[in-house]
Amino acid sequence: MSNKGILIVISGPSGAGKGTICKALLEKNQYYLSISATTRKPRAGEVDGVNYYFMDRDEFENKIKEDDFLECAEVYGNLYGTPRSKVQAMLDSGKDVILEIDIQGALKVKDKIEDGVFIFILPPSMEELKQRIIKRGSETPQSLMTRFKSAYQEINYISTYNYAVVNNTVSDAVNKIESILMAERCRVDRIKEKILDSKEGLIHEQLYD
Amino acid sequence: MSNKGILIVISGPSGAGKGTICKALLEKNQYYLSISATTRKPRAGEVDGVNYYFMDRDEFENKIKEDDFLECAEVYGNLYGTPRSKVQAMLDSGKDVILEIDIQGALKVKDKIEDGVFIFILPPSMEELKQRIIKRGSETPQSLMTRFKSAYQEINYISTYNYAVVNNTVSDAVNKIESILMAERCRVDRIKEKILDSKEGLIHEQLYD
Repeated sequence: MSNKGILIVISGPSGAGKGTICKALLEKNQYYLSISATTRKPRAGEVDGVNYYFMDRDEFENKIKEDDFLECAEVYGNLYGTPRSKVQAMLDSGKDVILEIDIQGALKVKDKIEDGVFIFILPPSMEELKQRIIKRGSETPQSLMTRFKSAYQEINYISTYNYAVVNNTVSDAVNKIESILMAERCRVDRIKEKILDSKEGLIHEQLYD
Repeated sequence: MSNKGILIVISGPSGAGKGTICKALLEKNQYYLSISATTRKPRAGEVDGVNYYFMDRDEFENKIKEDDFLECAEVYGNLYGTPRSKVQAMLDSGKDVILEIDIQGALKVKDKIEDGVFIFILPPSMEELKQRIIKRGSETPQSLMTRFKSAYQEINYISTYNYAVVNNTVSDAVNKIESILMAERCRVDRIKEKILDSKEGLIHEQLYD
């Protein structure tokens, strides 16, 4: 196993169940969640560095200029972004980092971290996706249809991803993602140099220490 | 999941433990073993189509001309080969096929079946590899050293493979290979067309039927 951690990008259309899957993955495994930065004001109970990195607009815009976001976007007048240096520091120290992100964000991250593992979460069916979007309840029939159509269109971006996991049940999806991570740690691309460097010594100890 | 089976190539230096791992994989899973063709005469108890496909030299050479071997080689005056049409028929019917093969053979197969999953089995250490070669016992000190050096050199071919699995314990290696297979079944390269074709319907049922 390489000493560097792996960036695990969990992405997919809204309503596919990314959030539930990430929560279950974090409960079962020694993965670390990437925390977003935002210019939005903290809500009651939200803690800086736990829920978000809270910062003012100037600080955020400076970090954009310094290219310190893997991706960022403005939503309802607030900026949100994934801090590159925080993620990189965790990866460098050997931690596997989960980034839960929408499709547009994932495409931007792909340009910056090529050896990330990009996993597209699919709903069990388009009908199920529709039901999940309806259940969230905060939508007018028209905005609901817009959201559904957008989710439907977004599935075309699947070609950019490495893996697709159907969220039929959460435990099944979590098992598949754990298998993907185990497989990725065995990929020759990731560990080749280490194997060839350590050929003379105890291969196992040097690979899996 | 794609309807086509996956070719699982289990390869690596002699003494790494390929055979034991394949046996354990076949006991636990619905995988099918690729059976070699040979011009060697059957030994007592060996059954055609079970241990080998036995054929005479003319028939074997005709099949070489028809390009019906994924690879073949002559060992001590007998020809051995992997019959392409037999393997392809199993893959086409959705069966996952295990091919246990030395490194030279695997490199030839790679040229013909690009979407196979090529797994390199590594011994826990070079010292352990030496001990395993010694334990087989049928070697003079000199041929032993030749075999060991050859195994040592062969590790350089690892770059051609997709995955490397250290055979520290058989059950650990088997778990890793099962994870690799589960991950490969989620690879977008393998299932993209099916997902995009089935977007309108029940994605899950069409992917996992």
